[in-house]
Amino acid sequence: MARSNPARRVALLDTAIETLAAEGARGLTFRAVDAGADAPAGTASNYFRNRDDLLTQAGERVYERLLDGASQVVVPADAPRDRDLLVRLMVDTVRRIVDYRTGFLALLELRLEATRREGVRDVLTDRVRADLLSNISTHEQWHMPGDAVTVRLLYQALNWLVVDALTLPGLVDDADLDAYVAETVERLLPTEPAGPALG
Amino acid sequence: MARSNPARRVALLDTAIETLAAEGARGLTFRAVDAGADAPAGTASNYFRNRDDLLTQAGERVYERLLDGASQVVVPADAPRDRDLLVRLMVDTVRRIVDYRTGFLALLELRLEATRREGVRDVLTDRVRADLLSNISTHEQWHMPGDAVTVRLLYQALNWLVVDALTLPGLVDDADLDAYVAETVERLLPTEPAGPALG
Repeated sequence: MARSNPARRVALLDTAIETLAAEGARGLTFRAVDAGADAPAGTASNYFRNRDDLLTQAGERVYERLLDGASQVVVPADAPRDRDLLVRLMVDTVRRIVDYRTGFLALLELRLEATRREGVRDVLTDRVRADLLSNISTHEQWHMPGDAVTVRLLYQALNWLVVDALTLPGLVDDADLDAYVAETVERLLPTEPAGPALG
Repeated sequence: MARSNPARRVALLDTAIETLAAEGARGLTFRAVDAGADAPAGTASNYFRNRDDLLTQAGERVYERLLDGASQVVVPADAPRDRDLLVRLMVDTVRRIVDYRTGFLALLELRLEATRREGVRDVLTDRVRADLLSNISTHEQWHMPGDAVTVRLLYQALNWLVVDALTLPGLVDDADLDAYVAETVERLLPTEPAGPALG
Protein backbone atom coordinates (compact mmCIF):
# COMPACT_ATOMS: atom_id res chain seq x y z
CA MET A 1 0.00 0.00 0.00
CA ALA A 2 1.25 3.48 -0.83
CA ARG A 3 2.60 5.50 2.07
CA SER A 4 0.95 8.81 2.73
CA ASN A 5 3.26 11.16 4.57
CA PRO A 6 2.61 14.27 2.44
CA ALA A 7 5.85 16.05 3.33
CA ARG A 8 7.87 12.94 2.49
CA ARG A 9 6.01 12.58 -0.82
CA VAL A 10 6.81 16.19 -1.75
CA ALA A 11 10.46 15.78 -0.75
CA LEU A 12 10.70 12.71 -3.01
CA LEU A 13 9.12 14.62 -5.90
CA ASP A 14 11.45 17.57 -5.44
CA THR A 15 14.37 15.15 -5.49
CA ALA A 16 12.97 13.59 -8.66
CA ILE A 17 12.84 17.04 -10.30
CA GLU A 18 16.45 17.77 -9.37
CA THR A 19 17.50 14.36 -10.64
CA LEU A 20 15.68 14.85 -13.96
CA ALA A 21 17.39 18.22 -14.45
CA ALA A 22 20.83 17.00 -13.41
CA GLU A 23 20.92 13.52 -14.90
CA GLY A 24 18.23 13.42 -17.57
CA ALA A 25 15.18 11.18 -17.75
CA ARG A 26 17.24 8.02 -17.90
CA GLY A 27 18.96 8.96 -14.67
CA LEU A 28 15.64 9.05 -12.84
CA THR A 29 15.23 5.77 -11.01
CA PHE A 30 13.58 4.92 -7.70
CA ARG A 31 17.03 4.17 -6.37
CA ALA A 32 18.36 7.62 -7.42
CA VAL A 33 15.38 9.31 -5.74
CA ASP A 34 15.84 7.35 -2.51
CA ALA A 35 19.53 8.21 -2.45
CA GLY A 36 18.98 11.90 -3.34
CA ALA A 37 16.32 12.28 -0.65
CA ASP A 38 18.44 10.49 1.98
CA ALA A 39 15.61 7.97 2.32
CA PRO A 40 15.97 4.23 2.97
CA ALA A 41 16.10 2.07 -0.15
CA GLY A 42 12.56 1.20 -1.21
CA THR A 43 10.95 4.43 0.00
CA ALA A 44 10.11 5.87 -3.45
CA SER A 45 8.59 2.58 -4.55
CA ASN A 46 6.20 2.85 -1.60
CA TYR A 47 4.99 6.26 -2.77
CA PHE A 48 4.77 5.77 -6.54
CA ARG A 49 3.18 2.88 -8.38
CA ASN A 50 5.80 2.80 -11.13
CA ARG A 51 8.19 4.98 -13.10
CA ASP A 52 5.41 6.63 -15.17
CA ASP A 53 3.66 7.58 -11.93
CA LEU A 54 6.87 9.12 -10.55
CA LEU A 55 7.52 11.00 -13.81
CA THR A 56 4.02 12.41 -14.17
CA GLN A 57 3.74 13.38 -10.50
CA ALA A 58 7.10 15.15 -10.75
CA GLY A 59 5.68 17.11 -13.70
CA GLU A 60 2.56 17.97 -11.70
CA ARG A 61 4.76 19.17 -8.86
CA VAL A 62 6.60 21.60 -11.15
CA TYR A 63 3.30 23.08 -12.33
CA GLU A 64 2.06 23.25 -8.75
CA ARG A 65 5.09 25.24 -7.65
CA LEU A 66 4.86 27.59 -10.64
CA LEU A 67 1.13 28.14 -10.12
CA ASP A 68 1.69 28.82 -6.41
CA GLY A 69 3.95 31.68 -7.45
CA ALA A 70 1.47 32.89 -10.08
CA SER A 71 -1.41 32.94 -7.62
CA GLN A 72 0.45 35.53 -5.56
CA VAL A 73 0.48 38.04 -8.39
CA VAL A 74 -1.77 40.96 -7.55
CA VAL A 75 -3.17 43.26 -10.20
CA PRO A 76 -4.63 46.45 -8.70
CA ALA A 77 -8.26 46.82 -9.73
CA ASP A 78 -7.63 50.31 -11.09
CA ALA A 79 -4.54 49.43 -13.13
CA PRO A 80 -5.22 50.16 -16.82
CA ARG A 81 -5.54 46.90 -18.78
CA ASP A 82 -2.90 47.87 -21.28
CA ARG A 83 0.21 46.55 -22.95
CA ASP A 84 2.43 47.80 -20.13
CA LEU A 85 0.52 45.73 -17.60
CA LEU A 86 0.79 42.66 -19.81
CA VAL A 87 4.54 43.26 -20.17
CA ARG A 88 4.86 43.45 -16.40
CA LEU A 89 2.89 40.23 -15.88
CA MET A 90 4.86 38.37 -18.55
CA VAL A 91 8.21 39.57 -17.16
CA ASP A 92 7.11 38.29 -13.73
CA THR A 93 6.04 34.96 -15.23
CA VAL A 94 9.24 34.41 -17.20
CA ARG A 95 11.38 35.40 -14.19
CA ARG A 96 9.48 32.95 -12.02
CA ILE A 97 10.09 30.15 -14.53
CA VAL A 98 13.75 31.00 -15.11
CA ASP A 99 14.34 31.20 -11.35
CA TYR A 100 12.94 27.67 -11.01
CA ARG A 101 15.59 26.48 -13.44
CA THR A 102 15.54 22.78 -12.52
CA GLY A 103 11.73 22.71 -12.75
CA PHE A 104 11.71 23.91 -16.34
CA LEU A 105 14.59 21.62 -17.33
CA ALA A 106 12.74 18.69 -15.73
CA LEU A 107 9.65 19.55 -17.81
CA LEU A 108 11.79 19.57 -20.96
CA GLU A 109 13.10 16.13 -20.01
CA LEU A 110 9.49 15.01 -19.56
CA ARG A 111 8.60 16.39 -23.00
CA LEU A 112 11.28 14.16 -24.49
CA GLU A 113 10.23 11.23 -22.34
CA ALA A 114 6.67 11.79 -23.62
CA THR A 115 7.88 10.75 -27.09
CA ARG A 116 8.82 7.37 -25.58
CA ARG A 117 6.13 6.74 -22.94
CA GLU A 118 2.46 6.99 -23.72
CA GLY A 119 1.47 7.37 -20.06
CA VAL A 120 3.69 10.43 -19.68
CA ARG A 121 2.46 11.83 -22.99
CA ASP A 122 -1.22 11.58 -22.01
CA VAL A 123 -0.83 13.20 -18.61
CA LEU A 124 1.41 15.97 -19.92
CA THR A 125 -0.92 16.70 -22.84
CA ASP A 126 -3.84 17.19 -20.45
CA ARG A 127 -1.73 19.28 -18.10
CA VAL A 128 -0.39 21.66 -20.79
CA ARG A 129 -3.82 22.00 -22.40
CA ALA A 130 -5.45 22.80 -19.05
CA ASP A 131 -2.72 25.33 -18.25
CA LEU A 132 -3.15 27.08 -21.60
CA LEU A 133 -6.93 27.21 -21.22
CA SER A 134 -6.56 28.57 -17.71
CA ASN A 135 -4.19 31.27 -18.98
CA ILE A 136 -6.69 32.25 -21.66
CA SER A 137 -9.50 32.35 -19.15
CA THR A 138 -7.52 34.53 -16.72
CA HIS A 139 -6.52 36.80 -19.58
CA GLU A 140 -10.17 37.31 -20.48
CA GLN A 141 -11.39 37.68 -16.90
CA TRP A 142 -8.80 40.37 -16.28
CA HIS A 143 -9.78 42.14 -19.52
CA MET A 144 -6.21 42.09 -20.75
CA PRO A 145 -5.48 43.35 -24.25
CA GLY A 146 -5.34 40.71 -26.97
CA ASP A 147 -7.25 37.46 -27.29
CA ALA A 148 -6.79 33.70 -27.03
CA VAL A 149 -4.38 33.71 -29.96
CA THR A 150 -2.26 36.35 -28.22
CA VAL A 151 -2.05 34.11 -25.16
CA ARG A 152 -1.06 31.07 -27.21
CA LEU A 153 1.61 33.00 -29.10
CA LEU A 154 3.02 34.38 -25.86
CA TYR A 155 3.14 30.82 -24.55
CA GLN A 156 5.02 29.68 -27.66
CA ALA A 157 7.47 32.59 -27.92
CA LEU A 158 8.24 32.88 -24.21
CA ASN A 159 8.69 29.15 -23.66
CA TRP A 160 11.42 29.04 -26.30
CA LEU A 161 12.97 32.21 -24.88
CA VAL A 162 13.27 30.33 -21.59
CA VAL A 163 14.80 27.34 -23.41
CA ASP A 164 17.46 29.65 -24.84
CA ALA A 165 18.06 31.43 -21.53
CA LEU A 166 18.48 28.20 -19.57
CA THR A 167 20.30 25.98 -22.05
CA LEU A 168 22.46 28.48 -23.97
CA PRO A 169 22.82 31.50 -21.69
CA GLY A 170 25.37 32.99 -24.09
CA LEU A 171 22.45 33.63 -26.48
CA VAL A 172 20.24 35.50 -24.02
CA ASP A 173 22.12 37.43 -21.40
CA ASP A 174 20.21 37.46 -18.14
CA ALA A 175 20.42 41.26 -18.07
CA ASP A 176 18.56 41.40 -21.41
CA LEU A 177 15.87 38.88 -20.55
CA ASP A 178 13.22 41.39 -19.44
CA ALA A 179 13.78 43.47 -22.58
CA TYR A 180 13.29 40.36 -24.75
CA VAL A 181 10.04 39.59 -22.96
CA ALA A 182 8.83 43.18 -23.39
CA GLU A 183 9.69 43.08 -27.09
CA THR A 184 7.74 39.84 -27.50
CA VAL A 185 4.61 41.32 -25.93
CA GLU A 186 4.96 44.58 -27.85
CA ARG A 187 5.27 42.87 -31.20
CA LEU A 188 2.27 40.65 -30.51
CA LEU A 189 0.13 43.65 -29.53
CA PRO A 190 1.40 46.33 -31.87
CA THR A 191 -1.71 48.37 -32.52
CA GLU A 192 -3.67 47.79 -29.34
CA PRO A 193 -4.68 51.06 -27.65
CA ALA A 194 -4.50 51.28 -23.86
CA GLY A 195 -7.65 49.81 -22.33
CA PRO A 196 -9.74 51.68 -19.78
CA ALA A 197 -9.03 51.32 -16.10
CA LEU A 198 -11.44 48.96 -14.38
CA GLY A 199 -12.52 50.24 -10.98
CA MET B 1 44.52 8.77 -35.92
CA ALA B 2 40.97 9.62 -36.99
CA ARG B 3 39.60 7.64 -39.91
CA SER B 4 38.39 9.65 -42.85
CA ASN B 5 35.84 7.71 -44.87
CA PRO B 6 33.29 10.53 -45.27
CA ALA B 7 30.31 8.24 -45.98
CA ARG B 8 31.10 6.16 -42.90
CA ARG B 9 31.44 9.29 -40.78
CA VAL B 10 28.03 10.53 -41.94
CA ALA B 11 26.45 7.12 -41.31
CA LEU B 12 27.83 7.15 -37.76
CA LEU B 13 26.48 10.66 -37.16
CA ASP B 14 23.04 9.73 -38.50
CA THR B 15 23.04 6.76 -36.15
CA ALA B 16 24.05 9.07 -33.29
CA ILE B 17 21.07 11.34 -34.10
CA GLU B 18 18.63 8.41 -34.10
CA THR B 19 20.12 7.16 -30.84
CA LEU B 20 19.81 10.59 -29.19
CA ALA B 21 16.15 10.82 -30.23
CA ALA B 22 15.31 7.26 -29.23
CA GLU B 23 17.36 6.82 -26.06
CA GLY B 24 18.20 10.31 -24.84
CA ALA B 25 21.60 11.85 -24.36
CA ARG B 26 22.65 9.30 -21.76
CA GLY B 27 21.93 6.50 -24.22
CA LEU B 28 24.44 7.92 -26.69
CA THR B 29 27.66 5.99 -26.27
CA PHE B 30 30.33 5.00 -28.79
CA ARG B 31 29.21 1.42 -28.30
CA ALA B 32 25.56 2.27 -29.10
CA VAL B 33 26.64 4.10 -32.26
CA ASP B 34 28.83 1.19 -33.41
CA ALA B 35 25.97 -1.23 -32.82
CA GLY B 36 23.33 1.00 -34.44
CA ALA B 37 25.50 1.54 -37.53
CA ASP B 38 26.37 -2.17 -37.81
CA ALA B 39 30.02 -1.21 -37.48
CA PRO B 40 32.76 -3.17 -35.70
CA ALA B 41 33.27 -2.23 -32.06
CA GLY B 42 35.72 0.66 -31.84
CA THR B 43 34.69 2.30 -35.12
CA ALA B 44 33.06 5.42 -33.64
CA SER B 45 36.03 6.00 -31.37
CA ASN B 46 38.21 6.16 -34.48
CA TYR B 47 36.08 8.93 -35.96
CA PHE B 48 35.37 11.09 -32.90
CA ARG B 49 37.88 12.29 -30.32
CA ASN B 50 35.50 11.94 -27.39
CA ARG B 51 31.84 12.12 -26.44
CA ASP B 52 31.65 15.92 -26.73
CA ASP B 53 33.04 15.66 -30.25
CA LEU B 54 30.41 13.07 -31.17
CA LEU B 55 27.59 15.14 -29.62
CA THR B 56 28.57 18.41 -31.27
CA GLN B 57 29.19 16.83 -34.68
CA ALA B 58 25.78 15.14 -34.46
CA GLY B 59 24.27 18.58 -33.82
CA GLU B 60 26.14 20.02 -36.80
CA ARG B 61 24.82 17.20 -38.95
CA VAL B 62 21.20 18.03 -38.05
CA TYR B 63 21.74 21.67 -39.06
CA GLU B 64 23.50 20.56 -42.24
CA ARG B 65 20.54 18.41 -43.27
CA LEU B 66 18.02 21.14 -42.44
CA LEU B 67 20.03 23.77 -44.32
CA ASP B 68 20.35 21.45 -47.32
CA GLY B 69 16.57 21.41 -47.50
CA ALA B 70 16.34 25.18 -46.99
CA SER B 71 18.81 25.89 -49.79
CA GLN B 72 16.43 24.27 -52.25
CA VAL B 73 13.69 26.79 -51.54
CA VAL B 74 13.18 29.00 -54.57
CA VAL B 75 11.50 32.38 -54.34
CA PRO B 76 10.49 33.72 -57.78
CA ALA B 77 12.08 37.12 -58.36
CA ASP B 78 8.73 38.68 -59.15
CA ALA B 79 6.88 37.27 -56.12
CA PRO B 80 5.59 40.15 -53.98
CA ARG B 81 7.56 40.36 -50.73
CA ASP B 82 4.48 40.24 -48.58
CA ARG B 83 3.07 38.45 -45.59
CA ASP B 84 1.68 35.62 -47.73
CA LEU B 85 5.14 34.82 -49.04
CA LEU B 86 6.56 34.80 -45.51
CA VAL B 87 3.74 32.49 -44.42
CA ARG B 88 4.58 30.14 -47.27
CA LEU B 89 8.29 30.12 -46.42
CA MET B 90 7.64 29.56 -42.71
CA VAL B 91 5.18 26.73 -43.41
CA ASP B 92 7.86 25.09 -45.60
CA THR B 93 10.47 25.55 -42.88
CA VAL B 94 8.33 24.16 -40.08
CA ARG B 95 7.25 21.20 -42.24
CA ARG B 96 10.88 20.46 -43.05
CA ILE B 97 11.78 20.47 -39.36
CA VAL B 98 8.77 18.41 -38.27
CA ASP B 99 9.44 15.88 -41.02
CA TYR B 100 12.97 15.46 -39.68
CA ARG B 101 11.50 14.49 -36.33
CA THR B 102 14.53 12.68 -34.91
CA GLY B 103 16.80 15.58 -35.89
CA PHE B 104 14.81 18.10 -33.88
CA LEU B 105 14.46 15.75 -30.91
CA ALA B 106 18.21 15.14 -31.00
CA LEU B 107 18.79 18.91 -30.90
CA LEU B 108 16.50 19.17 -27.87
CA GLU B 109 18.53 16.44 -26.17
CA LEU B 110 21.67 18.43 -26.99
CA ARG B 111 20.12 21.57 -25.49
CA LEU B 112 19.67 19.67 -22.23
CA GLU B 113 23.13 18.15 -22.49
CA ALA B 114 24.45 21.71 -22.96
CA THR B 115 23.39 22.45 -19.37
CA ARG B 116 25.78 19.70 -18.25
CA ARG B 117 28.69 19.92 -20.72
CA GLU B 118 30.50 23.17 -21.41
CA GLY B 119 31.94 21.90 -24.70
CA VAL B 120 28.48 21.13 -26.07
CA ARG B 121 27.16 24.46 -24.79
CA ASP B 122 29.88 26.49 -26.51
CA VAL B 123 29.52 24.80 -29.90
CA LEU B 124 25.72 24.91 -29.82
CA THR B 125 25.67 28.57 -28.77
CA ASP B 126 27.82 29.51 -31.76
CA ARG B 127 25.75 27.34 -34.08
CA VAL B 128 22.37 28.76 -33.02
CA ARG B 129 23.67 32.33 -33.07
CA ALA B 130 25.12 31.85 -36.57
CA ASP B 131 21.88 30.31 -37.78
CA LEU B 132 19.80 33.18 -36.41
CA LEU B 133 22.11 35.79 -37.95
CA SER B 134 21.97 33.96 -41.26
CA ASN B 135 18.16 33.92 -41.13
CA ILE B 136 18.11 37.66 -40.45
CA SER B 137 20.53 38.30 -43.28
CA THR B 138 18.49 36.21 -45.76
CA HIS B 139 15.32 37.95 -44.60
CA GLU B 140 16.86 41.33 -45.36
CA GLN B 141 18.44 40.30 -48.66
CA TRP B 142 15.09 38.98 -49.85
CA HIS B 143 13.39 42.21 -48.74
CA MET B 144 10.88 40.27 -46.69
CA PRO B 145 8.43 42.22 -44.53
CA GLY B 146 9.45 42.75 -40.92
CA ASP B 147 12.89 43.17 -39.41
CA ALA B 148 15.45 41.35 -37.29
CA VAL B 149 13.07 41.29 -34.32
CA THR B 150 10.41 39.66 -36.50
CA VAL B 151 12.87 36.93 -37.44
CA ARG B 152 13.85 36.32 -33.83
CA LEU B 153 10.25 36.13 -32.69
CA LEU B 154 9.39 33.72 -35.50
CA TYR B 155 12.34 31.61 -34.37
CA GLN B 156 11.06 31.61 -30.78
CA ALA B 157 7.37 30.99 -31.50
CA LEU B 158 7.86 28.40 -34.22
CA ASN B 159 10.49 26.41 -32.35
CA TRP B 160 8.11 25.91 -29.44
CA LEU B 161 5.28 25.07 -31.85
CA VAL B 162 7.52 22.28 -33.16
CA VAL B 163 8.23 21.15 -29.57
CA ASP B 164 4.47 20.84 -29.00
CA ALA B 165 3.83 19.12 -32.33
CA LEU B 166 6.59 16.54 -31.80
CA THR B 167 6.32 15.85 -28.09
CA LEU B 168 2.58 16.25 -27.39
CA PRO B 169 0.87 15.74 -30.76
CA GLY B 170 -2.51 15.79 -29.03
CA LEU B 171 -1.97 19.53 -28.51
CA VAL B 172 -1.24 20.40 -32.13
CA ASP B 173 -2.99 18.21 -34.64
CA ASP B 174 -0.83 17.74 -37.71
CA ALA B 175 -3.73 18.90 -39.90
CA ASP B 176 -3.74 22.24 -38.04
CA LEU B 177 0.00 22.83 -38.06
CA ASP B 178 0.10 25.03 -41.18
CA ALA B 179 -2.74 27.16 -39.84
CA TYR B 180 -0.86 27.68 -36.57
CA VAL B 181 2.24 28.75 -38.50
CA ALA B 182 0.19 31.17 -40.62
CA GLU B 183 -1.40 32.64 -37.52
CA THR B 184 2.01 33.15 -35.92
CA VAL B 185 3.31 35.07 -38.95
CA GLU B 186 0.10 37.10 -39.27
CA ARG B 187 0.13 38.18 -35.65
CA LEU B 188 3.78 39.18 -35.83
CA LEU B 189 3.19 41.28 -38.97
CA PRO B 190 -0.25 42.68 -38.37
CA THR B 191 -0.05 46.08 -39.99
CA GLU B 192 2.54 45.46 -42.67
CA PRO B 193 1.24 46.39 -46.14
CA ALA B 194 2.15 44.15 -49.08
CA GLY B 195 5.60 45.09 -50.38
CA PRO B 196 6.27 45.80 -54.04
CA ALA B 197 7.29 42.99 -56.39
CA LEU B 198 11.03 43.00 -57.09
CA GLY B 199 11.74 42.28 -60.73
